[in-house]
Amino acid sequence: MNRGRFIAFEGGEGAGKSTQARLLADALAARGLAVDLTREPGGTPGAEAIRALLLDPPGEGWGPEAEALLFAAARADHVARRIRPALERGTWVISDRFVDSSRAYQGGAGALGDAAITALHGIGSGGLRPDLVILLEAGEEAAAARLHARDGDASDAIGGRDAAYHQKVAAAFRSLAQADPQGFACIEASGTPEQVHAQVMAALAHLLEQA
Amino acid sequence: MNRGRFIAFEGGEGAGKSTQARLLADALAARGLAVDLTREPGGTPGAEAIRALLLDPPGEGWGPEAEALLFAAARADHVARRIRPALERGTWVISDRFVDSSRAYQGGAGALGDAAITALHGIGSGGLRPDLVILLEAGEEAAAARLHARDGDASDAIGGRDAAYHQKVAAAFRSLAQADPQGFACIEASGTPEQVHAQVMAALAHLLEQA
Repeated sequence: MNRGRFIAFEGGEGAGKSTQARLLADALAARGLAVDLTREPGGTPGAEAIRALLLDPPGEGWGPEAEALLFAAARADHVARRIRPALERGTWVISDRFVDSSRAYQGGAGALGDAAITALHGIGSGGLRPDLVILLEAGEEAAAARLHARDGDASDAIGGRDAAYHQKVAAAFRSLAQADPQGFACIEASGTPEQVHAQVMAALAHLLEQA
Repeated sequence: MNRGRFIAFEGGEGAGKSTQARLLADALAARGLAVDLTREPGGTPGAEAIRALLLDPPGEGWGPEAEALLFAAARADHVARRIRPALERGTWVISDRFVDSSRAYQGGAGALGDAAITALHGIGSGGLRPDLVILLEAGEEAAAARLHARDGDASDAIGGRDAAYHQKVAAAFRSLAQADPQGFACIEASGTPEQVHAQVMAALAHLLEQA
């Protein structure tokens, strides 16, 4: 049996990652592929428990070091208990966010730097990389409108940070993609969901041919 | 103002660490020193929440990588929110367990190795070391009797591991102490609490002279 493929959707808040991940999962299943659609932080009972601590911190909120370690712990559980076993039995795994979110949010835009985040991923998850990262890039105004439609004025401990932080996150994603053009497909996410989905399928064509 | 001193008690289950930490805190307070008595995992609201996840894991239990990352996250919060601020205002900090427990349990006796645990501690807590580690060494039978008196047949996800694991932990502690004779005081913990406490005070004499 062939090993499954691992696709991660990345990008800032409101770029349409969840919608596109679901559309892709449906399209792959319609082709007869086994698909596991998941998300980070979360995806396993342990990682979901860590997610709850991250989004609603007890006490004064997490410092950057504890936050990065918690994300890495959730990911280690997700990789060990769900992603690797699925890939090994031939299932395609689609994750709404993966390690590049930590690299952009806690590494590039945060206080820790990419070397620390990458070291945590090496220790926690054996440095597992997606076969392809789909980076959805939305203009700031479009993302804000989509977020407002979804959440109203509610927000969590990370989504609620200020505009300058989110601009740094977008720049960090862009530079990760530029440094690894084989590993990333950058897609302008301003069209309709169907238009964006068509671009996602085009970016995956080379992986689907081999499946 | 002088920086406070940081003393950690280490050793296997049932060696008397909590009792000795409390006796030391009382003795230092009686000398007029400001003292903060704490424990790991835990010591802050965030770290206590992580402790609850560690001792009663959701799902199938934590793998070694996730477990080590969770301990490092709890420690990062403990160091940032409680230990460093206390030391900076001149308070002596006494912790029932610190990073050498991770090195012995997850590093030496576990699957990860000391380099990984030390790297996590560097990223999470700037590699903070106690001024002195007091390693309480109890014979296996004495520790088992003390544990049984304390817990009966109840046990948690880590204390409940088998005897071979706990022997490996004891050996790992011993080799950490041998590699850093300045940083560790090894105390045979088979006497009465008062006898052991007298040895702890003797091991601390050089730090107390400077206080």
